[in-house]
Amino acid sequence: MDITRIEAAAARLAGHARRTPLLSSPFLDEIAGRRVLVKAECLQHTGSFKFRGGWSAISALDPEIRARGVIAFSSGNHAQGVAAAARAHGIPAVIIMPSDAPAAKVAGTRGLGAEVVPYDRATEDRDALGAKLAAERGLTLIKPFDEPLVIAGQGTCGLEIAEQAAEAGVTEADVIVCCGGGGLTSGIALALEARAPGLRVRPAEPEGFDDVRRSLASGAIERNAQLSGNICDAIVTPQPGDLTFPIMHRLCGPGLAVTEEEALRAMQAAFRHLKIVAEPGGAVALASALFRPDEIAGDAVICTVSGGNVDPAVFARALAM
Amino acid sequence: MDITRIEAAAARLAGHARRTPLLSSPFLDEIAGRRVLVKAECLQHTGSFKFRGGWSAISALDPEIRARGVIAFSSGNHAQGVAAAARAHGIPAVIIMPSDAPAAKVAGTRGLGAEVVPYDRATEDRDALGAKLAAERGLTLIKPFDEPLVIAGQGTCGLEIAEQAAEAGVTEADVIVCCGGGGLTSGIALALEARAPGLRVRPAEPEGFDDVRRSLASGAIERNAQLSGNICDAIVTPQPGDLTFPIMHRLCGPGLAVTEEEALRAMQAAFRHLKIVAEPGGAVALASALFRPDEIAGDAVICTVSGGNVDPAVFARALAM
Repeated sequence: MDITRIEAAAARLAGHARRTPLLSSPFLDEIAGRRVLVKAECLQHTGSFKFRGGWSAISALDPEIRARGVIAFSSGNHAQGVAAAARAHGIPAVIIMPSDAPAAKVAGTRGLGAEVVPYDRATEDRDALGAKLAAERGLTLIKPFDEPLVIAGQGTCGLEIAEQAAEAGVTEADVIVCCGGGGLTSGIALALEARAPGLRVRPAEPEGFDDVRRSLASGAIERNAQLSGNICDAIVTPQPGDLTFPIMHRLCGPGLAVTEEEALRAMQAAFRHLKIVAEPGGAVALASALFRPDEIAGDAVICTVSGGNVDPAVFARALAM
Repeated sequence: MDITRIEAAAARLAGHARRTPLLSSPFLDEIAGRRVLVKAECLQHTGSFKFRGGWSAISALDPEIRARGVIAFSSGNHAQGVAAAARAHGIPAVIIMPSDAPAAKVAGTRGLGAEVVPYDRATEDRDALGAKLAAERGLTLIKPFDEPLVIAGQGTCGLEIAEQAAEAGVTEADVIVCCGGGGLTSGIALALEARAPGLRVRPAEPEGFDDVRRSLASGAIERNAQLSGNICDAIVTPQPGDLTFPIMHRLCGPGLAVTEEEALRAMQAAFRHLKIVAEPGGAVALASALFRPDEIAGDAVICTVSGGNVDPAVFARALAM
């Protein structure tokens, strides 16, 4: 994996993905004690950066293989990113979701033209179901993060950060990235290595689900003790990916972790001062920038708001903090 | 007033105002029954388009006069736009606000470096107070809409709409604009007359406060019967301006008006599908596009979300609709 894969993805994404803005507010600067620049990926198509990776992977497929369709496992942002990219390519998308997934997410994914196949978490084997469907229909699996084409797609966000930070006069800073499996984090890190070497990526996670932070510290892949029970569900993954971890280990600074309350307070700050909607998992990087200033150095910090797909009731909790 | 004033304002604003994105979502298209493009001015500095007009007016002042400072009457978006533009120019700003203005708005305006001068609505004459301060300190009054430099600044939003609509392949459509005194509406109309003549501006207002709609229909300036009691307070003004009305009368199509409930529902739709924060007065154009489809013609409609400065409690009401 290197910058050429990301440049190729950027060429495929041109005119299809949005160039999301790098936002700021003097009120955020005051809270953080330094300049804060926010890459608003919640404004990407489907409300998260996942559209980049989905488009990158689907657009790179051989046309005959692509025409048969794609399949993904997800109840969240990856599902919507893949569904929207598939629809724009005029091909079928099958999304395998747990049968107890929130109705809004199922409806949202169906609304983007995908066929949603429910499975019972207790009694069915998700991977076997997916393999059977893929074989029967000739569908190509689009993995959520541990896939070079997906990493390259997410890396296009890093190309934009490099350009936009330079326009803002920032050439040295930590770039805090909301981190689940590491697709966005490793993609941005590769892009910045080539285009803005003074910008250093640092992953942000929820406290108690900081597998990437611990893995970076130990130098080997570490797992989370639990896989649910945090409001930042979109970025709770078992462990960093086999492809993403070596990239992060080579390029990233130390990880950061924040509490649920800090994530909610960052959502409210983004509402008040940037007028954007962040989901909890998409707010952990901003929360780190705002509420963990002593763990960051330098006059400026850049952070992603990586998604905004949040239930109104959860957002109302953030507003009431 | 013509396009040359707007072009001059755009040159002064370059590198200072944000080029806000033109957003869209297939889910909004489905609600509206046609393609919907949303100019997200809530993402402008200070959370509304008012920064454009404030910057335009302040940047055009003679440097010696400018150095003495500016003054404005406002408890809302104009106050913040003027305060931020003044601070960036390194000059004092005095904002005259009713003493019962919400604490958050006072704090927000002070946070942008302005001196807030409270007055008692019951016992003090606001205009006399402002004239006294202006004379004593040599401050220049920045009017909220009926001022060519302000109209020209708001018109820069129209230049961007013309370019972004063309990029999106839309050359004929109604452009629905949230309308108070008519500064944004007339500025956009002038810009589109010159740059995108197939795009026709139509003002949107709250029902019961539709002075511009009635004025356009009668051909003469009409007043609102009441001046408070609507959630869209930011765009409730007594009547269209003496400068803005002739421009709107010459260039605009029929006005639209929506209920408070429709404005709140549009705020929720912007939250769900665009991940942006709209205030009630900034959501009336989107509400018109979504919920009054029979009053609009054509395959596409463009609308402004003109501001996002909304109290969390009001936003929570929109989320609960």
